[in-house]
Amino acid sequence: METVKIGLLGFGNVGTGVYKILQENGPEIAHREGLNIEIKKILVRDIHKRRSMDIDKAMFTNSIDDIINDPEISIVAEFIGGTEPAREYILKALEKGKTVVTANKEVLAKHWSELEKTARENGAGLYYEASVAGGIPVIKVFRESLQANRVYEIMGIINGTTNYILTKMSEEGRDFADILADAQKLGYAEPDPTSDIEGYDAMYKLSILASLGFHARIHLDSIYREGISGITVDDIKYGKELGFAVKLLAIAKKQGTNIEARVHPTFIPLDHPLASVRDSFNAIFVKGDSVGNLMLYGRGAGDLPTGSAIVSDIISACHQKGRHAYTTFYNGDKLSEEINIVTDWETEFFVRLTVRDKPGVLAKIAGIFGKHDVSMASVIQKGHSREEVPLIFVTHRAKELSMEKAINDIKCLDDVIKVENVIRVER
Amino acid sequence: METVKIGLLGFGNVGTGVYKILQENGPEIAHREGLNIEIKKILVRDIHKRRSMDIDKAMFTNSIDDIINDPEISIVAEFIGGTEPAREYILKALEKGKTVVTANKEVLAKHWSELEKTARENGAGLYYEASVAGGIPVIKVFRESLQANRVYEIMGIINGTTNYILTKMSEEGRDFADILADAQKLGYAEPDPTSDIEGYDAMYKLSILASLGFHARIHLDSIYREGISGITVDDIKYGKELGFAVKLLAIAKKQGTNIEARVHPTFIPLDHPLASVRDSFNAIFVKGDSVGNLMLYGRGAGDLPTGSAIVSDIISACHQKGRHAYTTFYNGDKLSEEINIVTDWETEFFVRLTVRDKPGVLAKIAGIFGKHDVSMASVIQKGHSREEVPLIFVTHRAKELSMEKAINDIKCLDDVIKVENVIRVER
Repeated sequence: METVKIGLLGFGNVGTGVYKILQENGPEIAHREGLNIEIKKILVRDIHKRRSMDIDKAMFTNSIDDIINDPEISIVAEFIGGTEPAREYILKALEKGKTVVTANKEVLAKHWSELEKTARENGAGLYYEASVAGGIPVIKVFRESLQANRVYEIMGIINGTTNYILTKMSEEGRDFADILADAQKLGYAEPDPTSDIEGYDAMYKLSILASLGFHARIHLDSIYREGISGITVDDIKYGKELGFAVKLLAIAKKQGTNIEARVHPTFIPLDHPLASVRDSFNAIFVKGDSVGNLMLYGRGAGDLPTGSAIVSDIISACHQKGRHAYTTFYNGDKLSEEINIVTDWETEFFVRLTVRDKPGVLAKIAGIFGKHDVSMASVIQKGHSREEVPLIFVTHRAKELSMEKAINDIKCLDDVIKVENVIRVER
Repeated sequence: METVKIGLLGFGNVGTGVYKILQENGPEIAHREGLNIEIKKILVRDIHKRRSMDIDKAMFTNSIDDIINDPEISIVAEFIGGTEPAREYILKALEKGKTVVTANKEVLAKHWSELEKTARENGAGLYYEASVAGGIPVIKVFRESLQANRVYEIMGIINGTTNYILTKMSEEGRDFADILADAQKLGYAEPDPTSDIEGYDAMYKLSILASLGFHARIHLDSIYREGISGITVDDIKYGKELGFAVKLLAIAKKQGTNIEARVHPTFIPLDHPLASVRDSFNAIFVKGDSVGNLMLYGRGAGDLPTGSAIVSDIISACHQKGRHAYTTFYNGDKLSEEINIVTDWETEFFVRLTVRDKPGVLAKIAGIFGKHDVSMASVIQKGHSREEVPLIFVTHRAKELSMEKAINDIKCLDDVIKVENVIRVER
């Protein structure tokens, strides 16, 4: 049996997950895969820190060189996260011909070309199943199961924290701030939740997924990003009445050479497969010209689910030794002529206003929509007894910029007290 | 660029799907994968038959030997279906060292050991992604993404025809026979629908999935099978009231060395991810000790989705040339000591009776349940005005054999007019 010695960079949540899985299922993996995977060194900041697990202290090091320069270590698994020093360590490992398995979406989304080029030049593998959607094997499915497809649409719930918050808001009718505070107490949200709440995390992951799906590098600055902090219980309530659930969706579409990529709160019909993805679960809905609609659903985070992806990558890397696959993009660091990033995309819109309850308001608003080529699909007007009433529209498909202009004009109407929210709708 | 010449066995639905995909996406595949996949020969019954596609007649043959003995053909893709002559042809191809890609669940479920042994002995590959759930890459996910897991539960909607019928019955309130007749007219169900309706098709597929998931050959005779022809609109209506959707589920569970495998109509809670799998869509819900809950959803049949899986397998086979992976089971043709097939499994039950509306009936039935260690979770009793009333129970978890005995006793009660149905419940 082959013994493979690996080094871990980081020993937080994911690192301990990998350790536990190899402890628990190592013998089964050895039997089935013919591989004895042995953790030799673990890079940590503090080698004296008390750990919940009983691990030989000699395995810990605080020097990356102890791992990089160890010729016995052939695979390095990185879960430090963030850009630096993760990027530096990954490059160092690749330069030594060591294969790298990473859970780090940010470093991949920002420095993919550099990392992949270094891997290629040194005959090392670069594996990143754990970087998107934790335990869901979406990377392998894109790379190794959808080769016969032109993928033309990706819609993903790829941030667990925001899906948890939106699910709770929707099911318990409580405010965003309230649920976020609870989630932070329970450890479901970070003390600084910006990366999740404002969609950065989903943007990194979408950059990776869309790049793989469309075989073209979709850089971060090509992705529109909007978080969920503006979503209110009222939006959710009226959305439900109209048959919608709200999700933070990461969306990428390709039509010919036109590509659009965006992360924003989105209403989807309640019978859409993504609508029933609750709590912190993740799901990726893909459309390909051969496969049709495909959805992958599961745990997007957590020590064991993410560890599952890491260990799977380590096993794949061992079997692929000497012939690692590299990703082929139609474009490199720059957009090629073949790819055109679209920003004036089309969606339906949910528009929620507070207006004065006067005759003619609806007609004025309808007039503005018409002027900007936005046509209405449905209207809800609630309660005629009060001075101020909610007025909700759902439009047919309209251009992003047309809607922006229409909303600016609507804001100027005397009888429009407030444009409460504008939420895009996908089907 | 490498050119790979392949032979197709069969040119029905799936065969033409493969042809279309290679026509349409061949150049992209060549660019990305470095493979020029060329169909050289197609085995058909009638080489003179008129075909919808414009294909060089010289490609067709009605002799398997033209393909088996062609040294240029390195991969044979089989979609004849059924046991013979598919088995014979696959074996012949493997014996010549040709890799086989098959969509044939029946031949695999029945002759897996023989096929795999022959492949191994001749250094040929055996790939079967398309054999279960069409375009959904469940085989590769089991084999190459869940290696770090002990899979302990599989629940699948893996027959599109029955899911289509149950969805229509549920949404339109029409009878089984009615919808089946329509489905046959529309080509969604076979003229002889037995294999779908009575669960044989799902049983073949479950045998494959459970074998891969548990790393133990689960033979067809170890699988309990029950079809959907006994499900009525009333069952569905009362189920809905209780918060359930009905699905033909293929279920396999493993606890220690105990394995249960069964195909039967099943009630699942409406908020279960499988409950929203509508129409002819398929989905496989898996629980693993590391990954947690994972679900794959998509098109389980059709020329292009199944073709997507076939072409993906062909590409994988090319990349794996010289080191195809073979499946390792804890047992071979026979059950080993490590594996114990359980038939007296535990589920909750939905029991629908028609009883005489008399005092004491409920008490008598409750008494019988109690005697057989079945405890009730909920009861619905409808309408007190008529002589005969429906009486519906949902039980807590109970043993299969205990329920069988209880039902036999209940049938003997004077005031029980009919045991309308007994449907298992999973959560």
